[in-house]
Formats: sequence, C-alpha cells, structure tokens
Amino acid sequence: MPHQLLAGKRGVIFGALDESSIATHVARHCVAEGARITLTNAPVAMRFGSIQKLGEELNAPVFPADATSTDEWKSLFEQSREALGGPFDFVLHSIGMSLNVRKGKHYTDVNHEWMQKTLDISAISFHKMMQTLYHLDAMADGGSILALSYIAAQRVFPDYSEMADAKALLESFGRSFGYHFGTKKKVRVNTISQSPTRTTAGSGVKGFNDFFSYAETMSPLGNATAEDCARYCVMMFSDYTKAVTMQNLYHDGGFSAMGVNPALLGQPE
Amino acid sequence: MPHQLLAGKRGVIFGALDESSIATHVARHCVAEGARITLTNAPVAMRFGSIQKLGEELNAPVFPADATSTDEWKSLFEQSREALGGPFDFVLHSIGMSLNVRKGKHYTDVNHEWMQKTLDISAISFHKMMQTLYHLDAMADGGSILALSYIAAQRVFPDYSEMADAKALLESFGRSFGYHFGTKKKVRVNTISQSPTRTTAGSGVKGFNDFFSYAETMSPLGNATAEDCARYCVMMFSDYTKAVTMQNLYHDGGFSAMGVNPALLGQPE
Amino acid sequence: MPHQLLAGKRGVIFGALDESSIATHVARHCVAEGARITLTNAPVAMRFGSIQKLGEELNAPVFPADATSTDEWKSLFEQSREALGGPFDFVLHSIGMSLNVRKGKHYTDVNHEWMQKTLDISAISFHKMMQTLYHLDAMADGGSILALSYIAAQRVFPDYSEMADAKALLESFGRSFGYHFGTKKKVRVNTISQSPTRTTAGSGVKGFNDFFSYAETMSPLGNATAEDCARYCVMMFSDYTKAVTMQNLYHDGGFSAMGVNPALLGQPE
Amino acid sequence: MPHQLLAGKRGVIFGALDESSIATHVARHCVAEGARITLTNAPVAMRFGSIQKLGEELNAPVFPADATSTDEWKSLFEQSREALGGPFDFVLHSIGMSLNVRKGKHYTDVNHEWMQKTLDISAISFHKMMQTLYHLDAMADGGSILALSYIAAQRVFPDYSEMADAKALLESFGRSFGYHFGTKKKVRVNTISQSPTRTTAGSGVKGFNDFFSYAETMSPLGNATAEDCARYCVMMFSDYTKAVTMQNLYHDGGFSAMGVNPALLGQPE
Repeated sequence: MPHQLLAGKRGVIFGALDESSIATHVARHCVAEGARITLTNAPVAMRFGSIQKLGEELNAPVFPADATSTDEWKSLFEQSREALGGPFDFVLHSIGMSLNVRKGKHYTDVNHEWMQKTLDISAISFHKMMQTLYHLDAMADGGSILALSYIAAQRVFPDYSEMADAKALLESFGRSFGYHFGTKKKVRVNTISQSPTRTTAGSGVKGFNDFFSYAETMSPLGNATAEDCARYCVMMFSDYTKAVTMQNLYHDGGFSAMGVNPALLGQPE
Repeated sequence: MPHQLLAGKRGVIFGALDESSIATHVARHCVAEGARITLTNAPVAMRFGSIQKLGEELNAPVFPADATSTDEWKSLFEQSREALGGPFDFVLHSIGMSLNVRKGKHYTDVNHEWMQKTLDISAISFHKMMQTLYHLDAMADGGSILALSYIAAQRVFPDYSEMADAKALLESFGRSFGYHFGTKKKVRVNTISQSPTRTTAGSGVKGFNDFFSYAETMSPLGNATAEDCARYCVMMFSDYTKAVTMQNLYHDGGFSAMGVNPALLGQPE
Repeated sequence: MPHQLLAGKRGVIFGALDESSIATHVARHCVAEGARITLTNAPVAMRFGSIQKLGEELNAPVFPADATSTDEWKSLFEQSREALGGPFDFVLHSIGMSLNVRKGKHYTDVNHEWMQKTLDISAISFHKMMQTLYHLDAMADGGSILALSYIAAQRVFPDYSEMADAKALLESFGRSFGYHFGTKKKVRVNTISQSPTRTTAGSGVKGFNDFFSYAETMSPLGNATAEDCARYCVMMFSDYTKAVTMQNLYHDGGFSAMGVNPALLGQPE
Repeated sequence: MPHQLLAGKRGVIFGALDESSIATHVARHCVAEGARITLTNAPVAMRFGSIQKLGEELNAPVFPADATSTDEWKSLFEQSREALGGPFDFVLHSIGMSLNVRKGKHYTDVNHEWMQKTLDISAISFHKMMQTLYHLDAMADGGSILALSYIAAQRVFPDYSEMADAKALLESFGRSFGYHFGTKKKVRVNTISQSPTRTTAGSGVKGFNDFFSYAETMSPLGNATAEDCARYCVMMFSDYTKAVTMQNLYHDGGFSAMGVNPALLGQPE
C-alpha cells in the first residue's frame, strides 16, 4: 500500500477535527492514493482542531462550512470545485454531535429543541450536502458519497442516546437520496457503520471506554480502527465498487453478526 | 369476534381524523374488545374530521392536542388519566404529515425548515409522547405503546419522499425509548409497518394509486386493510404479546418478504 | 384469559415432548382457547416423554410421525383430519435436534453426514410438512402455520453450532413456502424467534445456562418464557393476525433490538 | 486499473465453468492484480467448460474437485498449497446447482432427496471447504474467503425455488464459520449477494430473462455485471477490507434498497 487507487480523483472531506478523527485518516489515505482533496469543517470546530496543519501537509485547501447551512455547503462546493478543477469523485460526511449528550440530559429527559439541533447537525446536514451537490451538478459520473454511521441505528446502546436516532435518520437519507443520485448520474451513496473509535467526538460519550472494550471483546477481529476505516473508505471511493449503492456497510470486525462471544462469558472459544 | 381481549383496559388513541383513518378502526375495535379510551388529534385536524362523532359513538372523551407540543401531550394525558380513572394500558401514535410532499417539493429540492417540521410532527412527536408518559408515570405496568410506520423506512419508495426518513426516525425512537420503558415498567414499545392504506393522509401521496396496486399485486395475501390493522393493534395491546418489544412488525400481507411476484411480471404462479 | 380465541378451530401440534416443551404449553393454551387438536412427535421421542398423558388431559388424539418422512407426515395429517373432522386452521412445527452437538463435535470439526441429518430433522422436516399439507389440501383457508426458531439464524452464538444454520434454513423455508400457501389459500406461514427457553432440548446445548442468563440480562423485559410463547402462538393462530405472513417474529423480551445493556457492564440504566 | 492490489497473494478459485462464469472474471482480475492462483471445479463441470484454457491463459494450475467431498477439498488444497508455495490469502466459492430446478420440479412438489443434494452441492460444500481449510491450517493470517449468494436468501423470488433456501444456508455458514476463522487467524468470511447475472448457471433458472430485466429496471445503477463483481471480489480479497467479516454484502446496483422504482410503474423519476 498505497496503490494509486484514487489517481486523478477529486474529493471533499468533511470532519477532520484533529489527529484522532477518522476523517483525518481518510484524508491522508486518499491523498496517498493519488487523490487531490479539499478539507472542511464547521468554523467553530476548526478553531479547536488542527485542520489547517493537515491542509498544509496534504496540500489541500481548507474551507470552513457550517454543515447546517445550505448556503455554506454551496459556497464550500463551489470553492472546492474551482480549487480542484472539476467535479468531485468522492465526498465524505463525518459529522455528528448531540447537544443532549453533551449537556448530560438523559434520553428520557431530552430537550427537544436541542434534539432538533442534534438531528440538523448530525443527519439533516447529510441531506443538505447531497441536495447542494445535486443542484450544483458537482458530482462526477459514477462518483461516491459516504457518511459515517454506527450500529446504534439498528440496536440500542443506551449511552449513545439520541445519536442513535440521528444515525438512523442519516442512513435513511443515504438510501433515499441514493436512488436519485444513482438514477441521474450513477453516483453511489453509502453509509459505513464503523466500530466504536477513540476519537475526540466518540470519547465524549458516557461510558465510552466500557462499550469500546465490550465491542472489542465481542468482535472476532476486534474493533476496526480509524486506519482500517480509512482504507475501507478508499475502496468505497475507488472504481472497484461501482455497483454498490444505498447500503449501510458494517465495518466492525464482525460485531454486527455476533449474538454472543464466549470470550464475553469467560468461556473458551 | 370480538373476544373482550381488552376488558378493563384503558387507552389513548391519537390520529382518528375521519372514517378512513386507521386510528378510527383501531378505536372502534378497542372499544368493542372491552377497553375504555380517549381520543385525540391536532386541533387543526379535528376541525376537518369527524372525531367528535366518533367520540360520541364510542363513549370516548375527546381532547385536542398538538403532537409537537410536550405541554399539550402532558395536558392530554393528565385529562385522559382522570377521565379513565387510572394509568394507560395502551397508546396509539398514528400521526404523519410531510410539508414538502403536501407542497409538491421534490425530494431533491426540499425546504429544510419544512423538513424539520415534518420530522417534528411525524417522528419527534413520538419521542415527546413517550417522554411525557414516562415523566407522568402514566403507563400501567406491562402496557403497550404502538406507532404506525411504513416499509419506506427500510426501502426506497421515491414518491413517499421525506416521510420515509421520518418513519426511519420514528422506528428508531421506538427502539430507543423501548429499552427505557421496558426496563422501568415492562412497557412494550413497537411500530407496525402497515401496507399502503387508503386513508385521507395516504391518498395525498403522489402516485398513491400506483403503489397501492403495486403492493396489492406483490403481496401474496394482498394489502392488509385498516380493519386488519385494527385487529393486529388489539393483539399488540393485549396480554397475548407481553414479551414483544422494540420491534418493527410488518403487517403487510407478505410484501416485505417478496423479491418479485410472478403476477407482477404477468407470469403464472 | 383465555378468551375463546380459537373456538371452533382445528390444529396439529408437533413437538410436545414433556412438561418443559414449548409445544406442550402451546397445546394447553390452544385447547383452553377453544381449539381441538391432535398431538404428534417422533416415535423415538414419544417413548421418553409424556405426550400420551398430555393427549388424555387435552382430549387430543396422539399420532406418532417421523418428521423426516413425507409418508408419515401424510399419514399423520390424514388421521388428524379425520379425527378433527376437517382441515386445519393451524399447525405448529417445534422440532430440532443436532447430532453434532449431541455427540460433542465442535463446529469446526463436524461430521457432515450428521449435519445432513440435523438439517433434515430440524429444517427440511418443515418443508416436508408444508408440502404434504399443500398436496393434501389439508389447510383451511386463511389458516396459520408456525415454526419455532432462534436468533442464531441471524447472529452467531457459537455454542448453538450447526443448529444456527438449521434455523436459517428453516426460516427460509417459511418464507419460500409462505408465498405459495398465501397465494393459493391465504394461509400464513411465519417463524417465531423465541428467547432461550429451559426445555429438555434447549438445556442440551453446551453453555446453555450461561447464554440463558446473558439473554436474560440483555433483554429489557427478560427472556420470554414458554408460557409467553404459547400465548403468542395463540395470537398468531387466531383471526387477529390474518395479514401477517412470511415473517420471522422476534419473541424475546427485546433481546434482538439490543446492542448492549448497561446491566451487562455493571452500569446503572 | 489494475493496481497490483493482490501482488504476492495466493488464491484458489472454484467455479470457473466457462467464459460467462463470474468465477472466470474473478480469476482474470485476480491475476491481473498480481495474484497467483489455482483453479478448480467439479470433474463433471470441467468436461463441459473451458477451465483448462483459462488455466493456461492465467498460468494457473487446474485441479478437479468434487465440492461435496471433504477428501477432494483436502487434496485440492494440498496440491494448491504446494503449487503456490504457501497458504492462501483468498478463496472463492462460486458453486450452486438445484436438482429440482433442473428437473423442472415445482417448489411445492420437490423431491427431498434431490433437495438434500442441492443443499450439499450449493451450501454444505462451503462448510466442507472451510472446515478443510481450517484443519489444514491452509489460510494465511488475515486472509479472505468469499462465497457468491443471491438476495433470494432474504426475499422470495419464486422461480429461484430451493436455491433460495440453499443460499440462506450458505450465508449462515459464512457467519458461523467466520467467527471461528476470525478468532483463530483473523481470516474474514463474507458472502456477496450479486445481481442476477447472465451465466450458464443463472440462465438455467425459469423466467431468468424476466427477472433479469425486472432487477435491471428496479436498480438505480442497473444490474451489477460479472465484471463489476470481479472487481468487488478483488477488493474483498485485498488488504483494504481487513476489518470486514461475517457480512452478506449486496452488490446489486441498489436493488436491495428499493421498494419500488417509478420506472417499473412507467412513471417519471
């Protein structure tokens, strides 16, 4: 590795907050595979993180954009298209934040205005992103759009709280818009349901260490790392996966297919 | 039929707009099975419909409530608890409305403020409802909460537009809150994924007749009717299903399990 | 309870080995709900168990039948139809046995002839049963066929070994034949995916106690009992569920919808 | 393309009957990506096909093996390991045949001995293959095993008949053995659920043309071709997917995520 899988391709990566971010790993891998990219994140997130440094390292222009604003998505994609010299072969959505979790509200006692905000930031942003790309005709034929998700969209992890619902909504947007993008331009839209990953965002979830270890023990291959995820995203952006769309793809070391792992019960294999 | 399956039980039914509503059928069946109920709907919906007449027929108090307002849910449940003389054994959520569909906006060109409204009315209302019930401790032990959904939550029916995403969110709320309600009071929370049904709401969807017939042809038993659905809801409210929770239950004549029906292709069985 | 839900209905129950069998509970509940039934089991199983006593208690003729023999299914259904005076409204398949598990062969070291036997007894028997019913035209219009399954068909429980594969096959037969039976006679075919249950058969699985407790802790409502299952089967045999077919229905206290239960990790809710 | 994704890797490909076979495409792509392989098929199938010619073209030794015989799997893998000079990084199982379909038996009138044969050839062969690889310790650490499947394992396509059940069983074997192979050697086991494909085997299914066109119209990207599938298999064999295991991966142009395509109903998008 690498193998120039994305040679000549252009992409936009959202969500590279800091060194621990999955999007940071994806950005590095995409460039190593021959792609040229732009980076983006919410203005407020950019102040905390290290995205500028990453941009310099990868020779990638950095444009701020508030993911809840269609206008800012528009401006981001216009600037990126100009900077990269053409439409995008791939786009990564790696955005999520729960106000109720952050403020310590229990799932049975959420503030519903905050919930609306959570859904807007973590899920509707994905629809806004795709709608903007669609209107600008900014995706190349056969391009690939990905968003990162989590299995809480299908099964209950109580500490994940309203983010579970946001991820279910996000995955639905992927399918729904995937139909239109596929029909119009053979653009693929998929979500990747990733193992719990030690990122700045992930670690904010209460009990993260406990369910990280739980998932590690449950999964026959152990948890998929951010590195693993970056490689998988490269593959989903490449021309090797042109017939895959509207799927939620588990990238989790087998966690999703396990009922129980004897290791959890302290038994031999 | 009936068999007094709900004798002595108390319930609240949301969404009985008019004679064609599934909730109207559910209300009649619940009362026929021995339950006492209250009826409710949004004030604006109550003006168009015939809920008052239904209330008289079923000897059921009618209380208006805007499903997007936690305060109104609270007031509704307090009034209902008083009217019925105790906590609820069952509650039906049958609420859904898409502003973008109603206003003819294509899925690739939605107004996102309207989408937020759609999600609030059609999905977040379910969370608000459950949170209110939880805080008021208004559910009886082992009670049953249902919401009506549609298979567009899993597979794309383009004309169903953003309602698909709303249903995916609704189903997720059912699972997420179901854990808490189950753990605390053995209350069950499930969603029923019903065949397309000729209701006033359903018929508003573009191309409804086409996909009604499509589903009718695809389903080995034909589409499940509103009557069928009412009977199934009675079962899910009864004591025969006390171990079923956090499920999305297809009630659809087999549609969801079909890949293709030879009848669609004009072939013999 | 009961409510004469099955008044006037005729049924055949396979698999009532002894007092702990789910089928025994189902048989009692069906009769209590007004049905008349016949009982059956493999000749070899009948020697160990107490089916004759159950037959006397329930006034139910008992006919032996080897579930792997189409001829014996035929004879059983002919005798039962005559004894009950007409075609069947419901049939329960509750049959499963793994030779490799019984003989202590690890999943990575099975004897494939025994595996063929396991599949024949535990899954193909279901196809043989339905094919026989179909040929004899022995199901009443709108009747209901059930088989018992387990979530190992979808997720890995290593100790369940090849029975997982048998259950996946069983569920597929339910869907496949359900199409034909639905189209021809509006007969419903479903499988019920039941919690681990302390039966004579279940307890034979290595580590049963461990995964029984695991499931008990994971499930918000606790494990569904054999009693619960019997009530659910009654409902699925009744006229309240006439539009449900080709489904695998989780009857498991919510287990299938859980990712992790904080109780498993020793955390508060 | 290609990108030397499999440089230095060794693999075994089962099922390259003739030019139309998916396995033939996979074999060519694997070699083009730098792998060295052996080819194999049932002796009877080898007589009809053109595997010898393919072997010469790809410089790949060809060894006959009856997939229902553990002894022949053993001999095949021993010869292949010797020919390739080490353990396998990837193995493809592309085997399926229904005796009842071939002999024109309707699904409601199958010969159950033939069904047993069908399951043995099309599904149990996969377990035998994995068990043999496991015992011989013939997979390299982190290797990848694939089998080809079809969505009939989840939804009913009546013409596909008992092959649907065989595929459900096949997919279950993938999950079940995937746990053991993952735990022991980080070997991944997955199944690919491919669009209907015009192969010699596929075309034998009654009504193939009808459901090929149906799937083509339903899928936003159209049906995935054998070429597409070969590229996807390369990816799943490569180091870009090392955290994916025990999954059934839809490779179908979006078919599996569609409820209805307006194009099917003669509507505009």
